[in-house]
Amino acid sequence: MGLSRRGFLHRLGAVGGYGATYSAMLAMGLLAAPPALAMPQLPAALGTGRRVVVLGGGISGLTAAYELERAGFAVTLLEARERLGGRNWTLRGGSKIEMIGEADQTVAFSDGVYMNAGPARIPSHHEHLLEYCRRLGVPLEVEINTTRSALLASSKGGAPIQMRQAVNDTRGWISELLAKALKRGALDQDLSAEEKEKLLPFLRSYGDLDAQHAFKGTERSGLLRHGGAADQLAQARPPVPLKELLANDQLSATLFEEAFDMQATMFQPVGGMDRIPAAFERAIRSPIVRGAEVVKIRQSPNDVTVVYRERASGAEKAVRADFAIATLPLNILAKIDSDFDPAVRKALATPIAVSTNKIGFEAPRFWERQQIYGGISFVGGETSLVWYPSNDLHSARGLLLACYAAGPPATRFAQRPIAEQIEIAKGVVARLHPGHETALSNPAVINWSKIPFSLGGYAWWGAPEGHIEAPAHRLLNAPQGRVYFAGDNLTQFPAWQEGAVLSAHRVVGLIADRVRQRAAA
Amino acid sequence: MGLSRRGFLHRLGAVGGYGATYSAMLAMGLLAAPPALAMPQLPAALGTGRRVVVLGGGISGLTAAYELERAGFAVTLLEARERLGGRNWTLRGGSKIEMIGEADQTVAFSDGVYMNAGPARIPSHHEHLLEYCRRLGVPLEVEINTTRSALLASSKGGAPIQMRQAVNDTRGWISELLAKALKRGALDQDLSAEEKEKLLPFLRSYGDLDAQHAFKGTERSGLLRHGGAADQLAQARPPVPLKELLANDQLSATLFEEAFDMQATMFQPVGGMDRIPAAFERAIRSPIVRGAEVVKIRQSPNDVTVVYRERASGAEKAVRADFAIATLPLNILAKIDSDFDPAVRKALATPIAVSTNKIGFEAPRFWERQQIYGGISFVGGETSLVWYPSNDLHSARGLLLACYAAGPPATRFAQRPIAEQIEIAKGVVARLHPGHETALSNPAVINWSKIPFSLGGYAWWGAPEGHIEAPAHRLLNAPQGRVYFAGDNLTQFPAWQEGAVLSAHRVVGLIADRVRQRAAA
Repeated sequence: MGLSRRGFLHRLGAVGGYGATYSAMLAMGLLAAPPALAMPQLPAALGTGRRVVVLGGGISGLTAAYELERAGFAVTLLEARERLGGRNWTLRGGSKIEMIGEADQTVAFSDGVYMNAGPARIPSHHEHLLEYCRRLGVPLEVEINTTRSALLASSKGGAPIQMRQAVNDTRGWISELLAKALKRGALDQDLSAEEKEKLLPFLRSYGDLDAQHAFKGTERSGLLRHGGAADQLAQARPPVPLKELLANDQLSATLFEEAFDMQATMFQPVGGMDRIPAAFERAIRSPIVRGAEVVKIRQSPNDVTVVYRERASGAEKAVRADFAIATLPLNILAKIDSDFDPAVRKALATPIAVSTNKIGFEAPRFWERQQIYGGISFVGGETSLVWYPSNDLHSARGLLLACYAAGPPATRFAQRPIAEQIEIAKGVVARLHPGHETALSNPAVINWSKIPFSLGGYAWWGAPEGHIEAPAHRLLNAPQGRVYFAGDNLTQFPAWQEGAVLSAHRVVGLIADRVRQRAAA
Repeated sequence: MGLSRRGFLHRLGAVGGYGATYSAMLAMGLLAAPPALAMPQLPAALGTGRRVVVLGGGISGLTAAYELERAGFAVTLLEARERLGGRNWTLRGGSKIEMIGEADQTVAFSDGVYMNAGPARIPSHHEHLLEYCRRLGVPLEVEINTTRSALLASSKGGAPIQMRQAVNDTRGWISELLAKALKRGALDQDLSAEEKEKLLPFLRSYGDLDAQHAFKGTERSGLLRHGGAADQLAQARPPVPLKELLANDQLSATLFEEAFDMQATMFQPVGGMDRIPAAFERAIRSPIVRGAEVVKIRQSPNDVTVVYRERASGAEKAVRADFAIATLPLNILAKIDSDFDPAVRKALATPIAVSTNKIGFEAPRFWERQQIYGGISFVGGETSLVWYPSNDLHSARGLLLACYAAGPPATRFAQRPIAEQIEIAKGVVARLHPGHETALSNPAVINWSKIPFSLGGYAWWGAPEGHIEAPAHRLLNAPQGRVYFAGDNLTQFPAWQEGAVLSAHRVVGLIADRVRQRAAA
């Protein structure tokens, strides 16, 4: 259940006769069709006289509040924390990290250095979120998700391999092997004469093979010596032997950049991911109650009452509304005093709250002196990766994310003392960038399983297909009386902000339909 | 001689026993060594009392002038045009394009829209150029050289294929075929049992194969339907059949991003490539004479005299100096009245001045509505590609480069009337983005072969190895009396600004050595 899993969640169903299907779709023009951008377009007075209470000021709650307010609903948003954004949280100098069972951390980053503790990238096809960035004026910049200068360090040890070597030497060896098999006639039964005739020359280009279809190394994998002025000829590296490539348990991380959700071009807001909740906050005029911890949910035939504890005073207060949208994490909702049907309460407790951890350090940008600008080095194990900053390239200092892991290894890791987590993360940097670990300063450790009001990174329903098949998932996507559940964890985009937006759009649409039907009745 | 050639210029020499070599280098720590950054570090008073005349204010001339001035030389820079930068040229609204034999064009781009007529990207390992950007304060941003949403349109016709399909469906089919060959034992003689055992499961991950090692399509290649809220499951596309992939003559352009000079991460100056010459101009205090067309070069035992024609007045003036650095294009230098040795004059006329063309249009960013943010679509033929802007993403309007081609097809294309070139480029956009060609406005056409004082895009010495082997290349890299030739065309980086910088550094170093030797004698 590593990070690369998310891009592969939704497996292609059995597709029979895909050649024929492809041609048919080509003829129908379907293959070139961009995905539809379907933003809510509700009449401005639709909600007049209707009250909605939104539980939770993460991206889903903010989206719902924004859209309902525009449609004339009287909205109240309750947020337990003093800040909005939920897991969309950007740490800067002075930020305080409270974790259950740990001493508080006060972040000591220099000016301009920040760490996205939660989401940190936006794929170019997460266009509903991008559309809010456009409409609300959130400047975006490129998030460099992949760079050929990053490294793959097998969790079993050995010298790290540069991404450009792993990608291009692997392709070289595979091309050589396939060319051999083709020339031996081993695939004659699988290919037409025409395919075979075209495939062999293509493999030369694909793997950068020589005229005899042998792989002798490629400039694509980098240089031992760079070319220069006059007669200083570039000299390619000898290839990494196939055996060494296959022995590196991070080799499959060369495919990370091909996961649909991880493909170039990707974005990040300039200045930190929390520029998105900040923009929603500027746009929303409805009351937002901070420090409001939801403690009770009750429904009557005519309304829904949400009781919250004012954390500052300890006083309990109630909000009555026609509808509630509950965007709190499901594991948090499961523990709140409610009059939901027992099946619903059981459903809320069904998914696993997945542990996710991030550890960031401030440092001078030593990695850029090795031509690593953005991108990710993969190391496996409990820390999984080292992620280089895409912001303010070529500046003096930056944020090096030396751990971002999810699932069981992350659960184990979070059980270690914070100081030990920091030392392990430093050790990974030492392995990738020997000697530079001493330049790391101002660590910030996030174990999402210990963060109050989150208690986990995202929800996991079981097998990938479980997201759609789980009865609990279906049940929670249906209105429960006057309460609608929303959030990334009830979509096919768990842990993505686009999921939070789409889920909010869906429940806003369901509420709008209900109001329309009442009006028509 | 297409664009992808440049990255493949320097072929790996014969490497015997590369497995052993690799292990040895690993042990020596050589494989992790970053390339050396070697900027000139001359004593500040080295050149006191020495005069240098620099011919040409492109990147090479500017670099040489800047470094020599810092070392105390009295520098005069002669530039035939009214602007500095040479082929580093950024077009904006109001820019005038003069081409021999064509009516002048006045560029009509809106504010904020620009076109880099010459170089337009900086690889992360062109670190000497990047170092000047740092030192001279040129803000950089990511140049998105590849994006999975771009298109490959075979020059032979047919529907364009998205880059993500071409990359991932090709890999899927290749993985399936190789898995079949492995299982049939066709490669038993080539692989150890251990390699074979590890390769098969790796191929499943590599090609996203099913449990039987069959390729049935992959989400990596994109979606027919995006996932969404609740039960809206994503649906992968059926794969493009191998036969269709191989029939697309642009399939090899999937490897473009792997050319060493084209790999992520790449950069561009914020606001246009000409921010680099503008920064040199701010930094240089020595006299820069514009509108100064060099017409004569004469040497004596004691000095060199360069005569230039003041283009505004027609008057001829002379500059005497101890040394000259001639950075003009070699084909231009070959025609200037000089007293060079006949072998030198012949050498100057040896390389071919390669035609390069660029055609840009201003347009609303319709491509971004198809999730194309930066990157390149490949079309082959006389126009080669469509290149989407990396600057000001998500803004209203941008510059679409609808032709960038080099070599013989570009020579033929430049012979067409300008209006016809524009129509052909529009037709390519129509093919990739049907209906949007009508949104293209304010065309700007650059045929470098017709641009005065350039008369070509870059120099081509013959076969790739010719760059190093050509006697003419060697001869021109040696000092000719008091004259030193410099420029990208005398390096292993033709057409790259890094080459211009390195060549300038080299001749600056040669002159410094000569001055030191005289002083010591």
